[in-house]
Amino acid sequence: MIFSDTDREMMALALQLAERGRYTTSPNPRVGCVITQNDKLVAEGWHVRAGSGHAEVNALAQIDNATDATVYVTLEPCSHSGRTPPCADKLIDANVARVVVAIVDPNPVVAGQGIARLRDAGIQVDVGLMAEQAADLNKGFMRRISGGLPWVRLKSASSLDGRTAMASGESQWITGPAARQDVQRLRAESCAIVSGVDTILYDNALFTVRPEAFAPELKDQYWRQPLRVILDSNLRTPVDAKLFSEGGEVIIATVVSDPERYVALTAVGAIILCLADDGNGRVSLPALMRYLADRGCNDVLVEAGATLAGSVLRADLVDEWFVYMAPSLMGSAGRPLVEWPMSKMAGQQSLEIIDIRAVGKDWRIHCRIPALIGGA
Amino acid sequence: MIFSDTDREMMALALQLAERGRYTTSPNPRVGCVITQNDKLVAEGWHVRAGSGHAEVNALAQIDNATDATVYVTLEPCSHSGRTPPCADKLIDANVARVVVAIVDPNPVVAGQGIARLRDAGIQVDVGLMAEQAADLNKGFMRRISGGLPWVRLKSASSLDGRTAMASGESQWITGPAARQDVQRLRAESCAIVSGVDTILYDNALFTVRPEAFAPELKDQYWRQPLRVILDSNLRTPVDAKLFSEGGEVIIATVVSDPERYVALTAVGAIILCLADDGNGRVSLPALMRYLADRGCNDVLVEAGATLAGSVLRADLVDEWFVYMAPSLMGSAGRPLVEWPMSKMAGQQSLEIIDIRAVGKDWRIHCRIPALIGGA
Ligand SMILES: NC(=O)c1ccc[n+]([C@@H]2O[C@H](COP(=O)([O-])OP(=O)(O)OC[C@H]3O[C@@H](n4cnc5c(N)ncnc54)[C@H](OP(=O)(O)O)[C@@H]3O)[C@@H](O)[C@H]2O)c1
Ligand SMILES: NC(=O)c1ccc[n+]([C@@H]2O[C@H](COP(=O)([O-])OP(=O)(O)OC[C@H]3O[C@@H](n4cnc5c(N)ncnc54)[C@H](OP(=O)(O)O)[C@@H]3O)[C@@H](O)[C@H]2O)c1
Ligand SMILES: [Zn+2]
Ligand SMILES: [Zn+2]
Repeated sequence: MIFSDTDREMMALALQLAERGRYTTSPNPRVGCVITQNDKLVAEGWHVRAGSGHAEVNALAQIDNATDATVYVTLEPCSHSGRTPPCADKLIDANVARVVVAIVDPNPVVAGQGIARLRDAGIQVDVGLMAEQAADLNKGFMRRISGGLPWVRLKSASSLDGRTAMASGESQWITGPAARQDVQRLRAESCAIVSGVDTILYDNALFTVRPEAFAPELKDQYWRQPLRVILDSNLRTPVDAKLFSEGGEVIIATVVSDPERYVALTAVGAIILCLADDGNGRVSLPALMRYLADRGCNDVLVEAGATLAGSVLRADLVDEWFVYMAPSLMGSAGRPLVEWPMSKMAGQQSLEIIDIRAVGKDWRIHCRIPALIGGA
Repeated sequence: MIFSDTDREMMALALQLAERGRYTTSPNPRVGCVITQNDKLVAEGWHVRAGSGHAEVNALAQIDNATDATVYVTLEPCSHSGRTPPCADKLIDANVARVVVAIVDPNPVVAGQGIARLRDAGIQVDVGLMAEQAADLNKGFMRRISGGLPWVRLKSASSLDGRTAMASGESQWITGPAARQDVQRLRAESCAIVSGVDTILYDNALFTVRPEAFAPELKDQYWRQPLRVILDSNLRTPVDAKLFSEGGEVIIATVVSDPERYVALTAVGAIILCLADDGNGRVSLPALMRYLADRGCNDVLVEAGATLAGSVLRADLVDEWFVYMAPSLMGSAGRPLVEWPMSKMAGQQSLEIIDIRAVGKDWRIHCRIPALIGGA
């Protein structure tokens, strides 16, 4: 099947509309929809947030009559009654003639059934236009639905000599305002931020999204503070930590049962999550990530120092790594980029650097992590 | 004085001609010359190597008659009789009408006297066209003549996590063929390569230029192997080190007098240079750089591991730093980028990153070193 230029133009527009849900749709996917009649654009819609209208419904609501229309949608229309009735049925009822779909919904309760239902009703359905872009927009959703894990991004700030803190633990500030603003965007895209107790102890970090810092227009719209998760095997997080005073929910992930600390931390609003041990007395990272996926987290951002960055990389849980590199030397006594001892050149871990770009005075190095070598 | 478009075009050409001497003119500067008559290009010349014709002489040799010509030269014509008679006199004898000069020669035996002599003879002399580019081409020459030190470039190869070797000393190969070829160009531009004895002991490094690797055309022209200097305070360099078997001269810079080692190393071709101690039993780096400048080295390339890289940076002797960063992790047990312990964020050493570019699979980070902070 060859798509026309109009098809491509309309699907590109639908993808742009889907983008508008970047910070808000989770746990749902980002979806956009465009309707044309006689190749003329007549309606646009996108999904804003769970519980509100799907993209197709929002687009249909803009017109009185969709007879013989072509509908472009970035994800297969749903076929199951969730919080809203199935979009496939709505499109059938509206008498549309053709539906162009970017990607099939990996969700097992849909997975091709939306398309089948449309075809059974005599509607022409063409699938696969701009599939790569559509999948890219929903990497987290796709990963969670089909693999039971979130899409995990790791963020580190380092000097040119690969240091993330001084030996004393001092690390504020390695990077400048522009880099920190860029991290705000990563946070806003994420359902959860994961860090370690030492970052709370040393930096009293907040891990909140401050939309005024990177997208002032967001302030007046719906957006959500990501869930914050602190890995704290022995419940060392202080009750007066700043993160309890602002922002979204806080989960303290631990491996111990300590009723006194439970009560104290719960009293300041923390949710205590007791997870499996990793074999070394620390929280199991695969168990945590599976828990977060089960909770509906599509995209998780890990913001941590060398210890946790090392663990999460070695556990092979990282999909993307953003290293914000400052034009500075923090010296040979500083803490490493990642705690990960290796002894032989043959045991090096190779990375795939996708791009390096200037962000203010700093440089953002964007990596993918190929198959782990194991650090022999 | 406003220069014309023709002036600019001709000086740009003269600069391109000067470039042809990039690998060969030292200790002399790189100089290019263009001659026009009635705004038409009639001759081109450039300086190839010390002892052979200057750029102006080579250009004049191309034409029978230079009467009323305009001469574009990237450096002030010389006024002193060196190995060849002064170019200023040759231009006067040739009856040229106008000389356009990019920069004044900082050499105290010229320093404006070439220009003065031309003006005294009634020739119009216009100075300053594309001065920045001309100075840039001869940073090493300018630095040596006016400051008594060479222009020093430091080259390091590191992983993303800032490691230059495994704890064992193993480091081959961090970067790929394209990066190593790029280093060949830096070497070829340099009068001397400086390294440390440990790089000889661990890597048995050669530090030679292999023109076939980056500029096959050079093979059939004149070019020179840079002088190689090994910092070796206690004369630990083995007599069977590969660098004695190939390439240019080798200087072993030391602080000890050890007749037996002197004899053994001299027998395999080494030149032993006894320099001042740096106060810690090691070779004084400022003393070495002054020595190299006195020997006529304009451009020096330091290729070293963390120890020497740390010393030369801390001695504030580095003008440019090229870090070839591989897309890999060598791990937290590896050797640092530079041995330079710092303890406070306020004591960080800031750098100026001029550009970052892909070189094959690796990335070249090009830095300037602002005023030293001292690493408190
Ligand atoms: N440059 C940066 O990007 C950056 C970012 C954050 C922090 N920092 C700096 O880094 C330092 C703190 O970082 P850090 O690396 O030492 O600690 P961290 O990453 O903040 O937290 C590590 C702690 O998390 C707990 N944890 C629980 N389960 C874990 C697991 N499976 N794997 C790893 N850790 C687990 C451990 O404490 P328990 O054993 O008690 O559970 C561990 O000590 C501070 O100096 C901070 O300023 C730098
Ligand atoms: N990644 C890279 O770019 C790169 C480049 C080269 C080497 N390497 C690796 O780095 C390791 C060797 O490097 P390294 O840093 O230990 O040694 P190095 O830089 O090769 O040499 C340092 C040695 O030079 C001598 N030296 C004399 N005067 C000195 C001074 N003023 N300052 C500093 N050193 C002086 C010292 O030995 P004495 O006290 O005996 O004189 C010192 O140990 C090896 O593992 C090698 O494979 C990596
Ligand atoms: Zn739907
Ligand atoms: Zn001359």
